Amino acid sequence: MRNIKLTIEYDGTNFSGWQIQKDKRTIEEELETALAKILKEEVKVIGSGRTDAGVHAMGQVANFKTDKTIKPEELLYALNTMLPYDIVILNVEDVDESFNARISAKAKHYRYVINNAKFPSALNANREYHYKYFLDTEAMQLAANDLKGKHDFKAFMAAGSTVKDTEREIYDIQVARLGNRVIIDVVGNGFLYNMVRIIAGTLIDVGSGKLDICVIKNMIETGDRNLGGRTVAPEGLFLVNVTY
Amino acid sequence: MRNIKLTIEYDGTNFSGWQIQKDKRTIEEELETALAKILKEEVKVIGSGRTDAGVHAMGQVANFKTDKTIKPEELLYALNTMLPYDIVILNVEDVDESFNARISAKAKHYRYVINNAKFPSALNANREYHYKYFLDTEAMQLAANDLKGKHDFKAFMAAGSTVKDTEREIYDIQVARLGNRVIIDVVGNGFLYNMVRIIAGTLIDVGSGKLDICVIKNMIETGDRNLGGRTVAPEGLFLVNVTY
Repeated sequence: MRNIKLTIEYDGTNFSGWQIQKDKRTIEEELETALAKILKEEVKVIGSGRTDAGVHAMGQVANFKTDKTIKPEELLYALNTMLPYDIVILNVEDVDESFNARISAKAKHYRYVINNAKFPSALNANREYHYKYFLDTEAMQLAANDLKGKHDFKAFMAAGSTVKDTEREIYDIQVARLGNRVIIDVVGNGFLYNMVRIIAGTLIDVGSGKLDICVIKNMIETGDRNLGGRTVAPEGLFLVNVTY
Repeated sequence: MRNIKLTIEYDGTNFSGWQIQKDKRTIEEELETALAKILKEEVKVIGSGRTDAGVHAMGQVANFKTDKTIKPEELLYALNTMLPYDIVILNVEDVDESFNARISAKAKHYRYVINNAKFPSALNANREYHYKYFLDTEAMQLAANDLKGKHDFKAFMAAGSTVKDTEREIYDIQVARLGNRVIIDVVGNGFLYNMVRIIAGTLIDVGSGKLDICVIKNMIETGDRNLGGRTVAPEGLFLVNVTY
């Protein structure tokens, strides 16, 4: 059976996230509906992971199995013709039968974008988080460095999450200022529920001076979510790519 | 009487343009409604010019008169609190009584953004025009150079427009490629109805090889709109700023 890998860009603004939910508009359902129309069979897509309502993707990855003979290039054009404007397929390719977008993922790159100007931007309102007080990105980077490596990240998980194994490895995290924007890029082998948004909220509190640069170290050591900053808004979050 | 100048950013996607129209959502009406609530009096704003439905602004300018004593900084914050997310006021200042945002304008800078990738971008769908065939920006720049100077631009005006004086002066036009994007920046003392979108559509046809690089020169000389390209979509157009 063929195993096909899709690379997907989406604007999360008008979606209730990736995962299919009854009576909600989701990316997974739009994809399965378009694929079913093109392939004339029911298809189940496997995403690299769920993204929440409002979260965007520049390079989400999914796979699905089929016996149909359509060429990858034809499927790419057919999907982009069929899908709504806020989902675009960037690539379609045949992959090994063992490939599973979720299980085979080796690393994920997330980006959190903060507009650090006095007022929000009308033109980027749904694509960034606005924070008006000046952020010291050097302090943020110093604090962020403590995330690197293999740690128990249970202090960086949404309350109510039931995941048992909370160990993850962060390969790299960079905090950069580009004019009025502060960009947090983080790459790791996996992320707990809301982990990037809790990291971003905590680093914002470090950058504004509300929290000490040792806060990340303390959170990892104590496992205490309450030491950190709040979970910041989904619209600043982008899944940049997934590495296999 | 005080005369107050506003600098305004807006995302034109969900507006029927600048100008007030019955039962339509317009930028002018949102501004006048917010000002009336804050100042507790009816206010008439004068814009530097109308923008069409879907056209964006990074720096539209308007002015209005009032006798109220509110400080500019307070009005700035009050407006940004009151206005919807897709309009942001960037600056509020008292200006000379003779200032009129439309009549006093010396130059306007417009930008047209083309996504020249194979597929449109989900994340920028309403902020650029997608054109998939490769554009030769050097040819576009050569053709564009003929726009510079004072000319009768009647060949660059929407059919049905009733403007009598069709002479305008273009101070500069630059065509640049930034990765997959092609950006057209044009500055002039004024623009006819749809003029920038006709310029962009004509330059796209030059860049793709459909039209000769002499087309702009021929349009100016003959006044014939039919020699040019089509009027391209509003979502690629931005009013960058207005100079006084």
